[in-house]
Amino acid sequence: MKVYFDNAATTAMDDRVIEAMLPFMRDHYGNPSSVHSHGREVRTAIERSRKKVAELLNATPAEIFFTSGGTEADNTALVCGIETHGITHAITSPLEHHAVLHTLEVCEQKGKIKLTKLDVNEQGVIDMDQLEASLKANPNSLVSLMHANNEIGNINDLNKIGSLAKEYGAFFHSDTVQTMGHYVHDLKSLPIDSIVAGGHKFHGPKGSGFLYVRKDKKIHPFIHGGAQERNMRGGTENVIGIIGIAKALELAYEDMAGHETHVKALKKHFIESLKAGIPDVEFNGLSADLEKSLYTVLNVSLPPSEANAGMLLFNLDLAGISASGGSACSSGATVGSHVLRALNHSPERDSVRFSFSRFNTIEDVDYAVEKLKELYAVEA
Amino acid sequence: MKVYFDNAATTAMDDRVIEAMLPFMRDHYGNPSSVHSHGREVRTAIERSRKKVAELLNATPAEIFFTSGGTEADNTALVCGIETHGITHAITSPLEHHAVLHTLEVCEQKGKIKLTKLDVNEQGVIDMDQLEASLKANPNSLVSLMHANNEIGNINDLNKIGSLAKEYGAFFHSDTVQTMGHYVHDLKSLPIDSIVAGGHKFHGPKGSGFLYVRKDKKIHPFIHGGAQERNMRGGTENVIGIIGIAKALELAYEDMAGHETHVKALKKHFIESLKAGIPDVEFNGLSADLEKSLYTVLNVSLPPSEANAGMLLFNLDLAGISASGGSACSSGATVGSHVLRALNHSPERDSVRFSFSRFNTIEDVDYAVEKLKELYAVEA
Repeated sequence: MKVYFDNAATTAMDDRVIEAMLPFMRDHYGNPSSVHSHGREVRTAIERSRKKVAELLNATPAEIFFTSGGTEADNTALVCGIETHGITHAITSPLEHHAVLHTLEVCEQKGKIKLTKLDVNEQGVIDMDQLEASLKANPNSLVSLMHANNEIGNINDLNKIGSLAKEYGAFFHSDTVQTMGHYVHDLKSLPIDSIVAGGHKFHGPKGSGFLYVRKDKKIHPFIHGGAQERNMRGGTENVIGIIGIAKALELAYEDMAGHETHVKALKKHFIESLKAGIPDVEFNGLSADLEKSLYTVLNVSLPPSEANAGMLLFNLDLAGISASGGSACSSGATVGSHVLRALNHSPERDSVRFSFSRFNTIEDVDYAVEKLKELYAVEA
Repeated sequence: MKVYFDNAATTAMDDRVIEAMLPFMRDHYGNPSSVHSHGREVRTAIERSRKKVAELLNATPAEIFFTSGGTEADNTALVCGIETHGITHAITSPLEHHAVLHTLEVCEQKGKIKLTKLDVNEQGVIDMDQLEASLKANPNSLVSLMHANNEIGNINDLNKIGSLAKEYGAFFHSDTVQTMGHYVHDLKSLPIDSIVAGGHKFHGPKGSGFLYVRKDKKIHPFIHGGAQERNMRGGTENVIGIIGIAKALELAYEDMAGHETHVKALKKHFIESLKAGIPDVEFNGLSADLEKSLYTVLNVSLPPSEANAGMLLFNLDLAGISASGGSACSSGATVGSHVLRALNHSPERDSVRFSFSRFNTIEDVDYAVEKLKELYAVEA
């Protein structure tokens, strides 16, 4: 049996997304910037995709810019947000994805900003008082806090953070890669200046993404070249990527509540089965809290075990179960997770992130729990 | 009849490229950074693609970095080449693609470099004496001159430019987007530090590209995030794009001489038929010189004509012929071509770029010539 429980790293493409992309591989190959018929039919498809994305997020098409993925979108928002708006100080947390953390650290090294990393407690909860104090002390700040953490699943309250940022005149960017397509984002009501998406996190293609920037907070382009994306991103558009991400988002919104119900039930069953089957099992961050964490992520901390020490992912892989030790993006496996390190996670215990999608089944969960019980029964 | 003569803007994908990509849409969806079996099979495919590209170009896999296209690759080489190597002065020409020109202009505006734009004559030939004088006068220079111009087809002598750059210790980057897959690049013998490719210019997918950087001229990353591309480009890889561009390059090299013979014959026939059929027809740049210009590009300057003034592309489009007024990337149609402007092209004459691929036929050429003769016979 093969079980794929690494959906926070990437997801399988939906067949309907592939079907939407194929005509733009086989037949409609024009350059969307060309004014002739071959170009115009592709331009129309791209703008229809942009309109669809904007509608779903309650934004306007002029606020949506397609990119090569979430990471490029984060880089654009941060590097160009800082440059365009004369920002001298940025506030983030040690739990951010490297697309945010490394980008801000490079901006700091270049002397463009001072960087404040907020404290987090052992459950990965951010110190909101410190956020307010930092905003108060530093005018012209940018706040970059993710919607939900990719490793432990903790969900931040974007309304609360955004309201604070607004109160102090700060630019508020959020890496929404883990929640896009899984939660509703209403950009009319959310007090937020920029968010991002990576299509492959919700059954769209890898190499696709978009950046939303609120229209009154326009920023300069990051990649210079032609006039594509309303002069916001040079380079011939990844047409199939754009068609794919828009279709994937459309499918996600079509039955988001249904997906959530299905996946949440899997996660709940997983938690209960582990608690019943493995003594001393724990859960990292807030990931066992069904309301305060992503329904797609469960980060399990297992009791010390000689047989599995450092070998847990490998042992699961041998059993046909694909899971992760942390962010796939930084997984040399040996490097370890910067998120768990920030939570002072005991190095004695092995941790594994199981992450789910609507393609998973209850049988997948039962199989994984059985295998974990076998692995940890050795020393029981 | 539909004729596609805008292959310098983008090309139709080869069916064999699509076939190579499909398994990575349907079945192999793992994140290449994941260490489990789902990830490893994709990692293997990516590294095999990198090895293939490196072999074809006589480079090493560690020198090839996949990007979202030629524009991102140009931005990376220029912005990060300048930063990494302490470059204070750049030399380019007014005929470069906007991916180079705008990027260098932004670097100049930010005060990072002084920028010299070499003079070109009315045929678009660069002043090589001025290049040498500028290199002599400015230590720590970067030279960015394209291999071949996308609008008029002029081919620059990379050996000559590179040897000069080397003599004066300059970093030499070349935008090779128009020649990659159409000409052989032997990076062992070429005195060049970085080149780029966009897959869609040689029957690969849009949104795919790569950057070659010589191993002794390593540069910093442009997009920060995870450890992908040996820490040179954060962001989950566009797997199908990578598979696609490598396959497209492989196919291009399989019968490059055959493609050249076929396409060159089309271009020769096009030139001869136009000369015979339309009095006062001219050719911009060196594009009528079969040896000194791209075999894929013919830039035709047509006699003044009231009926076609400003309407030529539109009239051709009505006749089912897709051609271009210049770079697709900057075609708001009304903007006009910065390349033809630099050549002091007469505003009285309409110009049109016909660009070919191995999918074109002699019938395509005859049809286009017939239509042009009809359009220009009105006032004959």
